Amino acid sequence: MTSPDGTARPEDQIAAVRKAADDIARLVAAGHEVVLTHGNGPQVGNILVKNELAAQVVPPVPLDWCVAQTQGTIGFILLDALNTAMQQAGLGERQATLVSRTLVDLADPAFTKPTKPIGRFLPEAEARVMVEHGQDWEDRGERGWRRVVASPEPLEILDAPAAKALLDAGFLVVAGGGGGIPVVRDADGSLRGVEAVIDKDTAAVLLARSVEADVLIIATDVDNAVVGWGTPDARPLGRTSVKEMRALAEEGHFASGSMGPKVDAVCRFVEDGGRLGVITSLTRIDQAVSGGAGTVIHAD
Amino acid sequence: MTSPDGTARPEDQIAAVRKAADDIARLVAAGHEVVLTHGNGPQVGNILVKNELAAQVVPPVPLDWCVAQTQGTIGFILLDALNTAMQQAGLGERQATLVSRTLVDLADPAFTKPTKPIGRFLPEAEARVMVEHGQDWEDRGERGWRRVVASPEPLEILDAPAAKALLDAGFLVVAGGGGGIPVVRDADGSLRGVEAVIDKDTAAVLLARSVEADVLIIATDVDNAVVGWGTPDARPLGRTSVKEMRALAEEGHFASGSMGPKVDAVCRFVEDGGRLGVITSLTRIDQAVSGGAGTVIHAD
Repeated sequence: MTSPDGTARPEDQIAAVRKAADDIARLVAAGHEVVLTHGNGPQVGNILVKNELAAQVVPPVPLDWCVAQTQGTIGFILLDALNTAMQQAGLGERQATLVSRTLVDLADPAFTKPTKPIGRFLPEAEARVMVEHGQDWEDRGERGWRRVVASPEPLEILDAPAAKALLDAGFLVVAGGGGGIPVVRDADGSLRGVEAVIDKDTAAVLLARSVEADVLIIATDVDNAVVGWGTPDARPLGRTSVKEMRALAEEGHFASGSMGPKVDAVCRFVEDGGRLGVITSLTRIDQAVSGGAGTVIHAD
Repeated sequence: MTSPDGTARPEDQIAAVRKAADDIARLVAAGHEVVLTHGNGPQVGNILVKNELAAQVVPPVPLDWCVAQTQGTIGFILLDALNTAMQQAGLGERQATLVSRTLVDLADPAFTKPTKPIGRFLPEAEARVMVEHGQDWEDRGERGWRRVVASPEPLEILDAPAAKALLDAGFLVVAGGGGGIPVVRDADGSLRGVEAVIDKDTAAVLLARSVEADVLIIATDVDNAVVGWGTPDARPLGRTSVKEMRALAEEGHFASGSMGPKVDAVCRFVEDGGRLGVITSLTRIDQAVSGGAGTVIHAD
């Protein structure tokens, strides 16, 4: 899904999700219990534009509501696609999507210095109007200005117990979409949403640990993490220890905006007690789990 | 929540939901297992306006996606509020919201003749532009034109098995919001969303039967259904048989746009084998279930 500006059409999103569902169904067919999570950048971008353009007519909703909206849409098209793929493979009809919140701390330094860019680029003059409305926008050079928001550390996947209960009842579970809806707990114990976005890879690690998963797969658009990427010595990584992976990351082999966070996530999963961390393409996920493809990180 | 044009502000919606959560927590405190469903008219209205106004910049999403979006937002603010209310009452943290789909049939006559008005009123000229884009709009007199959509009969609450599994694991479950996201099953067995809205009271009956509920409560803004409403002989109804209730409905005691569908829903629930159908205000739901308030319909 490749329209971070929010211009991905619903029919294209459905087509992408249907393709993914076939890959996931193969994982289920191989006997695995699956909890599925997903990003939502393009979909949040779409909703932010609508909020901006309609703000004079109907109230805009805050960013946490936008994340919740994308859990609804991506969640239900995933359910439809997974139902179809699993039915056709004789794997039954037990799929469920949870609206999922992630606890964060208002004292997280991310709230003091927002750094995560979201939504579309705007000319400076239009961005300055949004700044006057209390938003943070940054000059990103030639393409214009872009809103930045807090990306605090996820502390707890609040709806993980429900995900575990559904897993135990035999459901494939979709949860934690977009990193989860960010909420804080006030001094009186009450919960409320806050404007932030949570890194989906970091949230995925926490979700995986919370449901006691033994394998975390981060599906991406390449079959393997690669050392020396873009050089004549490029070498795809297969089965690797977490120690070796950390050393390669230290040497700067993985780009900070793309492969770096994924490598960090699977390493943390294994360091926290997970059995295997996998980075591979969607079409290879079933092979990767049985050791026949992908970059597979283990404890030692 | 009283802004069908979509102008209800997020903070007002949160305040309304927090109040409702306290009422629901009392029901849980009395020992009942609860599945909660809700409407979404004002919220869908808000999203439809945004889709219309931003259509030149980012793709609008179809009506089924709008319903899914409202399940996300209402679902998560309900989770936060229920968590707060139940924690404060010492009732624990097991609450969950399911993204929920409702199966309908494309052969339903509602798709040939859409009748359910949604969204805001527009002047004729603007409405005609939307008609050219394939939508159905009707002249509603002085206030202008309004979009009408299909409201097909709900056939199956597809995510009811997940709701039942969560209930069995001790969760209060939010499901079927807005009547559920309407989906159809194509000839090849695959599921897909369709542009429609499902009557929330009718869907609530089906959901209640699907999770084997013994009581269906329809919470509204009055304590009782009333016979002779607006006349000197007005009389609030208490404990009543389904036979008597059907007879009163036949005599035209309940308005077709408001109390009529609620009376019909609770009667159908009891006729289908449910123990009690209740119509009352949110603040009375706990008393009503124990027979001390509200209109309570039983089999004989």
